[in-house]
Amino acid sequence: MNNNKVADEIRVLAFDVFGTIVDWHQSIAREVRAMSLDVDPDKFALAWRAGYQPAMQRVASGELGWTLIDDLHRMILDDILKQFSVTHLSEYQKRHLNKVWHRLDAWPDSVAGLSRLKSRYTICTLSNGNIGLLTDMAKRAGLPWDCILSAEVFRKYKPDPATYLGVARVFDLAPDQVMLVAAHQSDLDHARAVGLKTAYIERPYEFGPSQRKDISASPQNTFHAENIIGLANILGC
Amino acid sequence: MNNNKVADEIRVLAFDVFGTIVDWHQSIAREVRAMSLDVDPDKFALAWRAGYQPAMQRVASGELGWTLIDDLHRMILDDILKQFSVTHLSEYQKRHLNKVWHRLDAWPDSVAGLSRLKSRYTICTLSNGNIGLLTDMAKRAGLPWDCILSAEVFRKYKPDPATYLGVARVFDLAPDQVMLVAAHQSDLDHARAVGLKTAYIERPYEFGPSQRKDISASPQNTFHAENIIGLANILGC
Repeated sequence: MNNNKVADEIRVLAFDVFGTIVDWHQSIAREVRAMSLDVDPDKFALAWRAGYQPAMQRVASGELGWTLIDDLHRMILDDILKQFSVTHLSEYQKRHLNKVWHRLDAWPDSVAGLSRLKSRYTICTLSNGNIGLLTDMAKRAGLPWDCILSAEVFRKYKPDPATYLGVARVFDLAPDQVMLVAAHQSDLDHARAVGLKTAYIERPYEFGPSQRKDISASPQNTFHAENIIGLANILGC
Repeated sequence: MNNNKVADEIRVLAFDVFGTIVDWHQSIAREVRAMSLDVDPDKFALAWRAGYQPAMQRVASGELGWTLIDDLHRMILDDILKQFSVTHLSEYQKRHLNKVWHRLDAWPDSVAGLSRLKSRYTICTLSNGNIGLLTDMAKRAGLPWDCILSAEVFRKYKPDPATYLGVARVFDLAPDQVMLVAAHQSDLDHARAVGLKTAYIERPYEFGPSQRKDISASPQNTFHAENIIGLANILGC
């Protein structure tokens, strides 16, 4: 099937957000630097993000009840502040720092690419971030979502099938009329397993400028694009 | 307290949609007329809308499990097609007609007013309409929501307190930092009862040009505005 035919079948593009649309690493490092915390900003950002999957796993396993990412981020933050021996922050400062995840900067191509894709498709988030976080982020960064979908809507975290299939259900579509767009092969693998189309976005410096991640193409994805503008080019938007 | 002080306290404006932001009566009458159904378009629109509260009541009472508005609209449509002796529609035509609720036109002031309010506040829907319906409507009518919240997110229909308080919870705010904006005093009464601020919007011809509804001010509301542009004026946006 050629690209035009496939592009015609798709009705909704659902986007992973952290890493795919916004640059969490540089945004967190920037704020940590601005607060003059006596820590390595790169390592601090990486440690915070590294706590994310295990924290969600505690929810998925039932060890924790349903918990928003804002609250999981705070639990991880309290741990890493200890780990990095940061002891002088007030409760107000900790609350403010925790909301850095609401203030992540978009990659330079995201707003322009999304705006083009929006002219042809319904574009929504499908993120484990909570609705308030994603809304604050979109407002600050100018991300032109038609709709904000989140694990919070489905009360399951990705990669639970209820999240991917939930997008199709919300829009009364078949799974293959929805395409997940993400910079993470594992997220795409889980979406594909329940029938969604998938597009991989290269974000070689997701983990910071000092380490380049593997961005090799997987033949299993429907599309592979350098960035969101590249995806708009492929889809003829 | 003066208007400026109150306006400063508010962080999120949550909008009722059917009747408040969009003109369901004229939009439905228009499509019914275009389909050349042999019915009075005004009476047909009113009958469809009149089935709405009783249908939601069947969900609230537990008689029906959780059911999306799209599906409730279809149940009501099947009833009124019988009632109006319309027997010739195909399944495809019925499905298309049912989605007229996704294609409602905005009142003439809505887009301009919301755009101004968005510059100062987070603006979201708080509607019993499902997420897909509200997203399709916003895309077609150009409604610039920051976020689409729906009974579907909370799995309760307004006026359940979980919906009004749900908006505050999503944005990590106190109830009085949220204002419900609606053309229906009853909706506002329920929101006020759990601590939200309230703004009444006059929509004298919500039920069609041939019947004017009571739009008198209630002193219990925080604000009373002629329309959404009027609300933007009051809030200094």
